[in-house]
Amino acid sequence: MTDNITLLPDRYFDPDPEQKELALHLYQQVAGKPLVCPHGHVDPAMFADPDYKFGTPADLLLIPDHYIFRMLYSQGMELEKLGIPRQDGAPVETDHRKIWQLFANHFYLFRGTPTGMWFNHELHDVFEIREKLSGQNAQQIYDQIAECLEKPEFRPRKLFEQFNIEILATTDAASDTLDHHKAIKESGWRGRVVPTFRPDGVVNIDRPDWRENISALGGVCGYEISSYKKLVGALESRREFFKSMGATATDHAALTPFTCELTEDQADAIFQRALKGTATEDDATRFTGHMIMENARMSVEDGLVMQFHPGSLRNYNDLIFNRFGFDKGCDIPVQVDYTRNMRPLLNKYGNDHRLTLILFTLDETTYSRELAPIAGHFPSVKLGPPWWLHDSLNGMRRYRDQVMETAGLYNTAGFNDDTRAFPSIPARHDLSRRVDANWIAGLVVRGILDLEDAQEMIHDTAYRLAKRAYKFD
Amino acid sequence: MTDNITLLPDRYFDPDPEQKELALHLYQQVAGKPLVCPHGHVDPAMFADPDYKFGTPADLLLIPDHYIFRMLYSQGMELEKLGIPRQDGAPVETDHRKIWQLFANHFYLFRGTPTGMWFNHELHDVFEIREKLSGQNAQQIYDQIAECLEKPEFRPRKLFEQFNIEILATTDAASDTLDHHKAIKESGWRGRVVPTFRPDGVVNIDRPDWRENISALGGVCGYEISSYKKLVGALESRREFFKSMGATATDHAALTPFTCELTEDQADAIFQRALKGTATEDDATRFTGHMIMENARMSVEDGLVMQFHPGSLRNYNDLIFNRFGFDKGCDIPVQVDYTRNMRPLLNKYGNDHRLTLILFTLDETTYSRELAPIAGHFPSVKLGPPWWLHDSLNGMRRYRDQVMETAGLYNTAGFNDDTRAFPSIPARHDLSRRVDANWIAGLVVRGILDLEDAQEMIHDTAYRLAKRAYKFD
Amino acid sequence: MTDNITLLPDRYFDPDPEQKELALHLYQQVAGKPLVCPHGHVDPAMFADPDYKFGTPADLLLIPDHYIFRMLYSQGMELEKLGIPRQDGAPVETDHRKIWQLFANHFYLFRGTPTGMWFNHELHDVFEIREKLSGQNAQQIYDQIAECLEKPEFRPRKLFEQFNIEILATTDAASDTLDHHKAIKESGWRGRVVPTFRPDGVVNIDRPDWRENISALGGVCGYEISSYKKLVGALESRREFFKSMGATATDHAALTPFTCELTEDQADAIFQRALKGTATEDDATRFTGHMIMENARMSVEDGLVMQFHPGSLRNYNDLIFNRFGFDKGCDIPVQVDYTRNMRPLLNKYGNDHRLTLILFTLDETTYSRELAPIAGHFPSVKLGPPWWLHDSLNGMRRYRDQVMETAGLYNTAGFNDDTRAFPSIPARHDLSRRVDANWIAGLVVRGILDLEDAQEMIHDTAYRLAKRAYKFD
Repeated sequence: MTDNITLLPDRYFDPDPEQKELALHLYQQVAGKPLVCPHGHVDPAMFADPDYKFGTPADLLLIPDHYIFRMLYSQGMELEKLGIPRQDGAPVETDHRKIWQLFANHFYLFRGTPTGMWFNHELHDVFEIREKLSGQNAQQIYDQIAECLEKPEFRPRKLFEQFNIEILATTDAASDTLDHHKAIKESGWRGRVVPTFRPDGVVNIDRPDWRENISALGGVCGYEISSYKKLVGALESRREFFKSMGATATDHAALTPFTCELTEDQADAIFQRALKGTATEDDATRFTGHMIMENARMSVEDGLVMQFHPGSLRNYNDLIFNRFGFDKGCDIPVQVDYTRNMRPLLNKYGNDHRLTLILFTLDETTYSRELAPIAGHFPSVKLGPPWWLHDSLNGMRRYRDQVMETAGLYNTAGFNDDTRAFPSIPARHDLSRRVDANWIAGLVVRGILDLEDAQEMIHDTAYRLAKRAYKFD
Repeated sequence: MTDNITLLPDRYFDPDPEQKELALHLYQQVAGKPLVCPHGHVDPAMFADPDYKFGTPADLLLIPDHYIFRMLYSQGMELEKLGIPRQDGAPVETDHRKIWQLFANHFYLFRGTPTGMWFNHELHDVFEIREKLSGQNAQQIYDQIAECLEKPEFRPRKLFEQFNIEILATTDAASDTLDHHKAIKESGWRGRVVPTFRPDGVVNIDRPDWRENISALGGVCGYEISSYKKLVGALESRREFFKSMGATATDHAALTPFTCELTEDQADAIFQRALKGTATEDDATRFTGHMIMENARMSVEDGLVMQFHPGSLRNYNDLIFNRFGFDKGCDIPVQVDYTRNMRPLLNKYGNDHRLTLILFTLDETTYSRELAPIAGHFPSVKLGPPWWLHDSLNGMRRYRDQVMETAGLYNTAGFNDDTRAFPSIPARHDLSRRVDANWIAGLVVRGILDLEDAQEMIHDTAYRLAKRAYKFD
Repeated sequence: MTDNITLLPDRYFDPDPEQKELALHLYQQVAGKPLVCPHGHVDPAMFADPDYKFGTPADLLLIPDHYIFRMLYSQGMELEKLGIPRQDGAPVETDHRKIWQLFANHFYLFRGTPTGMWFNHELHDVFEIREKLSGQNAQQIYDQIAECLEKPEFRPRKLFEQFNIEILATTDAASDTLDHHKAIKESGWRGRVVPTFRPDGVVNIDRPDWRENISALGGVCGYEISSYKKLVGALESRREFFKSMGATATDHAALTPFTCELTEDQADAIFQRALKGTATEDDATRFTGHMIMENARMSVEDGLVMQFHPGSLRNYNDLIFNRFGFDKGCDIPVQVDYTRNMRPLLNKYGNDHRLTLILFTLDETTYSRELAPIAGHFPSVKLGPPWWLHDSLNGMRRYRDQVMETAGLYNTAGFNDDTRAFPSIPARHDLSRRVDANWIAGLVVRGILDLEDAQEMIHDTAYRLAKRAYKFD
């Protein structure tokens, strides 16, 4: 019994036999549907080169995945020991078998976590491993995965096809030249990989890398971004370029969802202070708040779907940030007030049918209090799926519980996997489809829905809502 | 299967067979109990005239119901197309069959929402319709309802009796002369319809219609409300009048539950600024906060139960408010701090047994953190049922889950339907009774309660708590 | 049926038969494990004297238990009638049979509350009472309990042994001389009762009893605490003394989890103002915030586990506080922001493996938003179990639901009973073990865990995590 892993066909469903059977029935109707991936962080480079290799099992599954190494770090393992590269180039563990062993020894830490569920699914479905990972079998499983990764069918393009991905959106900086996307297009490969325009690096003036990003943007535009007006012009032209490369959406992050409207003079004054390095915290808040509104205006004009992900206090742990950089598992959420903060934007553009604004949150208290009422009223607003730490069995259940009655299913934007861990994509969609099937089955066995409605809804949640919200039709 | 609607006798109960059976058993004991409706927004005019007619199906079921049209608006339907009257008198759709068709075409939007559940119940129980509403059968169902509405048994008084309503409280402005209530009383009809005193219009000085309301209050009092002192006197005399007309309660709304005590001079200074149009936002907050305390003082003296509904940012969408006015589905909740804000009031009056203060919230985070601890300590405080957007299957479940263990059942005020949609009243009470039966059954099957306690409790939740809290005995 | 109480062997488990059976199976594996009680408020005096008697049933079960009398107070019973001593020495009810009768008459108020569950368990298991308490049988049950309390096997030491308590930590002021702990040690009795160092009384300068506490601390140190530096020295030496007496932990409370670093001069300036009675509210906040950091520094150095319990607005009801003093059921929680407030401390000490910082909350919104992400990243941080009002069936369920997926089980600190009601300890651990067994069983029947992991986890939650987190090994 020690290390037999069985992925039960009716896993993740509630135990009541009637609900379980119905959930399985609903799930099976969509289990094979193509995957629509409208938001995520997969590196497009892996599809640009037909012969791209993933490297070792640790390269593929551990080192890039901050969901995994943050948990190990929290239990006392140093990131260096996990092979996470240091900013200063100091040596870190390079023996990937050792890294793998350390992870396997502590795999019990992931009991009951989404990371654990996804990982088990990946091992089982992608690498056909039939044992539960442990310290004992770590090296043997490492071998099995390494062997797979050598095979041609484990090239990214092949997996993309095998995973039945219909479309995959990446996330790309405003200054990105989208060379990989170009290469993919020109290669004749029929996988659909599209960019997403994410201008945070150049509009959030308090970022440590802002000046660098502004230079890069100037570089691709061919002129110096020396004024607010030039920034706006640059953004507009980059959006146009992204759109021409297949983008249907933009993405925006900020500490708070504060929005406000500045005059051009006010905006430029802040921009100039930012260039001189004299901008205040308040400047940064107002500038970002204004640029969110500007991007909404641009979306009204160019039709790009606007995604907004506020509420994460990034790089919270100075030691980790200074040593290892961005996205190392130390972004911590804060309380968020959407109602008051977004009123300027919603009053100006919220009634405009040309805008699609997809809101996300890490503060679940806003689901029933703010986001569902806003999405249940404003024609432009849709709610994104449970984000990040809440993209989990319980997180999705809480979302359905707290959002649906007020917003209704049709003011939501379906699922997205939001991952940089490419081989976890099927696992993530599968978990979501199962949780949704269970939710819908729960409504049927409670006499809230009939079976006809249920069948419609499972197709909506698994496939159609995402496609429609992101204008992929 | 397409359009058969079946309201299952055991609907809304959890699927476990033992719990379901017990829930049904408990529910059946109270399914036929009279409806106590201590808080709502039904227009008393409909009971003043024995021959009052509801108009068309759209007049009755759609046009006045912002739960319905906000959802349609959120999906791109213009309010004009739904027959919502404009403030400027500009034309809106007058073909009620067209409005009905538009609604029916989009009835799928309400899947899994309380509005959908109530609506299905109304069609089934009030109008004896046995099909699920859809675009196909919309006109036929319109005909069936329209036919019913012609019949004498569909006059409001007859429905009131058929619904088995024991008492219905309306909500009435401080300046209301209660002519309809008088007419009802004098008519000899035995239906009990009582007013509720709601002075928000004259105490919230930041309301757009405040000055108008103050004039109206002066009008009914026979003197100009030219000072704070006169306002207090006017409120006291209006409360007395409401009480003489059967009122047992007052109702108060504010953006926050801030309370504070001003001296008479301070209060009058703000009042004078308000008259001159120079009051600040801070003035408004403090004046409202003070008037909440004043009304608590009056409740201590005259025994009227005090209801407090803070936390909704009203008329959030300027475009909709300017075009269509109040109560158009665009009030959005905000975070609320009861603990700090209500301390002045609770310290002054919270220990006084003469006060009954019923607190409501749209910020569910306060259930377990603030409201249950406050109600579980202060003798004056009771918690109202899940309010507005949370008056739903999940909302009621969350309330029971988060409130009961700390406050106990007996610090709550039973159910109220809070509706302006008169024919939805039985559906709303039925949903509540079912959810409570299921909750109590869940406690029994977990060995937390015995059956004897369970039987007591279902009668308390369905009938007795509301009657007692609102002093209807 | 009226008054038969049956504690079902499978109580508190979900009703699905498969889950229930498995939960019972898991529970039975740990039902007999020793109780680890790392945090609570039991008076050590009762173990210092081998012949200590508990007094009357009301002395034992009602008068010291603010969970009980706050509920009675909320329903209109005066604390004087319940025998709660007044600060001014005014007379209160001394007839304990009358107090007991009043409680029994209102025992229905506790339906579905943890207090009710614990109480039923105590009556059944400790006093072998087989009826449900009611007004009718109140005096007879009083007699039964009183008779028990006369017996030698109901002396605290005997119950301690019978309860199978492995270790019990008390909570003790910085100035406490720990005479009772000394007496216990020297008595040769083998029960392990250890102190916990709680310096709030001397570091929270806004406490009404601060000056008194500072004097007492000076008294035990043998010098006047006339400066900040002397305070720090005194704390360090008291911590050392506590450690020598078996303490493994400290405990800290504050209104907010604000942390900041002051220079020694800044800290001393505030300290001097506090001595003079001129410290401001802001002084108090900053001083407490600084002292929290200082205590973290000391914990890094001396290895004492640091517990932090912020977020309760103590003594909220002036009337009750003035008349009856501390801990009278009128502490009301407030919203808490851990993310921003604790950043200084976490950045300075959070990565240090020598620190164990156990965080608690009364603001459940922080579970998924802040605490689980923080514990799931920082090696020093563990999450304490659901605290106080949330130490309940639903509260524990919400905690598991919202914390586990992000923090993982192994960043939590197991259970603690946090009680001053000694005879309720087994009931509290039993409830917790049952809820955990049900939670784990729920994961198994959903295919998330296999049985092998489940068996590990139930031993972790019931016993091992607490022992490890508090360094009792």
